Amino acid sequence: MTLSHSGKPGPLSDLIVIDLTRYLSGPYCSLLLADLGARVIKIESPATGDDSRYVPPIFDGQSAYFMSINRGKESIALDLKNEEDRRVLDSLLNEADILVENFRPGVMDKLGYSAESIAQRYPSLVYGSISGFGQTGPWRDLPAYDLVVQALSGMMSINGQPDGPPTRVGTSIGDLGAGIYAALAIVSAIHERARTGRGGRVDVAMLDCQVALLESHYMRYHASGEVPGRIGSRHPLITPFDTFECNDGYLVICTVGDAMYQALVKAVGRPELASDERYLTPQDRLRNGEVFKAEFEAHLKTANREHWLKVIGQAGIPCSPINSITDMSDSPQLEARGVFVNVESANGFSYKAVRSPMKPAMATSGAINETERAPTLDQDGERIRGELLKMAAS
Amino acid sequence: MTLSHSGKPGPLSDLIVIDLTRYLSGPYCSLLLADLGARVIKIESPATGDDSRYVPPIFDGQSAYFMSINRGKESIALDLKNEEDRRVLDSLLNEADILVENFRPGVMDKLGYSAESIAQRYPSLVYGSISGFGQTGPWRDLPAYDLVVQALSGMMSINGQPDGPPTRVGTSIGDLGAGIYAALAIVSAIHERARTGRGGRVDVAMLDCQVALLESHYMRYHASGEVPGRIGSRHPLITPFDTFECNDGYLVICTVGDAMYQALVKAVGRPELASDERYLTPQDRLRNGEVFKAEFEAHLKTANREHWLKVIGQAGIPCSPINSITDMSDSPQLEARGVFVNVESANGFSYKAVRSPMKPAMATSGAINETERAPTLDQDGERIRGELLKMAAS
Repeated sequence: MTLSHSGKPGPLSDLIVIDLTRYLSGPYCSLLLADLGARVIKIESPATGDDSRYVPPIFDGQSAYFMSINRGKESIALDLKNEEDRRVLDSLLNEADILVENFRPGVMDKLGYSAESIAQRYPSLVYGSISGFGQTGPWRDLPAYDLVVQALSGMMSINGQPDGPPTRVGTSIGDLGAGIYAALAIVSAIHERARTGRGGRVDVAMLDCQVALLESHYMRYHASGEVPGRIGSRHPLITPFDTFECNDGYLVICTVGDAMYQALVKAVGRPELASDERYLTPQDRLRNGEVFKAEFEAHLKTANREHWLKVIGQAGIPCSPINSITDMSDSPQLEARGVFVNVESANGFSYKAVRSPMKPAMATSGAINETERAPTLDQDGERIRGELLKMAAS
Repeated sequence: MTLSHSGKPGPLSDLIVIDLTRYLSGPYCSLLLADLGARVIKIESPATGDDSRYVPPIFDGQSAYFMSINRGKESIALDLKNEEDRRVLDSLLNEADILVENFRPGVMDKLGYSAESIAQRYPSLVYGSISGFGQTGPWRDLPAYDLVVQALSGMMSINGQPDGPPTRVGTSIGDLGAGIYAALAIVSAIHERARTGRGGRVDVAMLDCQVALLESHYMRYHASGEVPGRIGSRHPLITPFDTFECNDGYLVICTVGDAMYQALVKAVGRPELASDERYLTPQDRLRNGEVFKAEFEAHLKTANREHWLKVIGQAGIPCSPINSITDMSDSPQLEARGVFVNVESANGFSYKAVRSPMKPAMATSGAINETERAPTLDQDGERIRGELLKMAAS
């Protein structure tokens, strides 16, 4: 007898994940695995559980921050310094395909779950670790936050306006990036296991992931010596391909080539700009980009966004509003794509969270869940212990 | 006889990918698969190849932009409207595990490679598509650029300074995000195939991926009604946890809790701030965050970054410089992690590109490549056609 699977549809529905992660990077990784069908058993400390259970906003008495990232998982409280609880964890690891954790390097070793000991005791287990700087290298023991890896990697240095300060990317890309790359590495290791029978070690560093997302900036520096800086929203090589302000909000316009440029200035009622010497060729427009932007934007500020989107769109030129979160929340496209999933509180109230954007999890073998539960601390503890007892008895 | 594998180490070294992608989102997806060990055969139009071959900077006669994203792949030029070339593609698909493309929805159907026809002819093939808005929904036919999906999704609305305009994330997160999620979906579908024998369809939309990366902002709006805006670099709930300017550059400081706050103001020589009524509790500091930042930053501007990082770091408070790309390029940590890979031009010159941040690709079965080639157009065409001929004859 073995632990049962999630019963959810999805390509990973035959996998069991033991999840020791807290906060964001690790829990986002296991959320992706859960959305792809895996059964994820979250181990939490009995006293308080995952610290993110206390992060606002609070929705119907539970942290919505926690709920969004831990929906579709099970929770069992285990004290990893207690012998009996460790035996429960060991039994779970014996049944699992994947272990994932995001403690600081060294913590798992102290708890007795070093990579070496895991490899010896559970040779087919894939052991994924997410940390700020990785399990190796001179910085491995340093603490890291999303803000720290965004700062160190160079991410903040290239994000923002040219006349403004370096700026944190407004979403936690330091954590989320590491979570996605880690999920990819883990599923790849599971694929390799089918060939070799052996699990393996996955060691993902938040810093490495930020540098990976900056690949074009590092490339530019290494290949040409140019130091990338902040250029706001504009395209580095094409003008106009940027943000513009109207009298009631912002839009983006993307032109590629002379014909599209000429169609644009005609569409907005400034045909003389088509033959303006300063803007004749792509090179001219790039060189005089700042002047063009000031002149063109002054014109756009004479009317509203809806008007400009209509006339520019009708001319066949790619353009779009710069939406707020509110603007998109009821988008028919997101509705058609099934992007949102209801997350239910312990009392049965629900709000819309964002589903992972991977269609296979939604399309394969059976209907997807329209509503998911976010577990309260140890909500599944008794049932999971019961499963283990039955297994031991059989 | 079958097509040979990549011969590279990595968990996906038994997989063959036929790659019809161009520009960035799709090629980044297949780059990740190549870095994980897969053999990636890039199909390019005979006339010009991938348009990104012409994007600057030019390094030793080749586009470094193209090289970084297409290193470690093979190139064969095929005209998909020519019967003989289509037979080559069909033979390749017959041997492949994965097909990946990022044309606009409908283009593959017109070429005769609809999802239905692929499923029928190559039932074990995993067919991954990346598009702006996905293969379904009212917006499926609209054109998309990285800037457009950053604008539409709300990403730009929450990125930037509170008193500044909405700002594009300074790296192409619209393209890269879609590429990573697509790779995860594809490898997951490969895992499912081992169970079912059937390949399947992976339909990833750039817009969905941006919304996924904004999950905490959508959560906040849906759970509490609050509309997220731009808050610069600061933490939304904790002060001080932000960027500060010194007399020669920027740093970040992260404090959590009263003790850390008090240690900080003592370390920088402003102990009176510890008992200042405006900053006594976390709530006080959050409420008076702007005043605190102005006052504290004025003080930091009296000395340089190195000085402050030393005294703040010695007090045990997480802090770090905001690095430029140059600052990090020689980092001992990135060196120790093997983050960079040399990419070689056709003439044998090389520069350092960024490797995918997934240790399994680097650690398993054998040494990793220190130098990789970026193929010239059709560089591998003759050899690949030869392989197919040998297969047909055997």
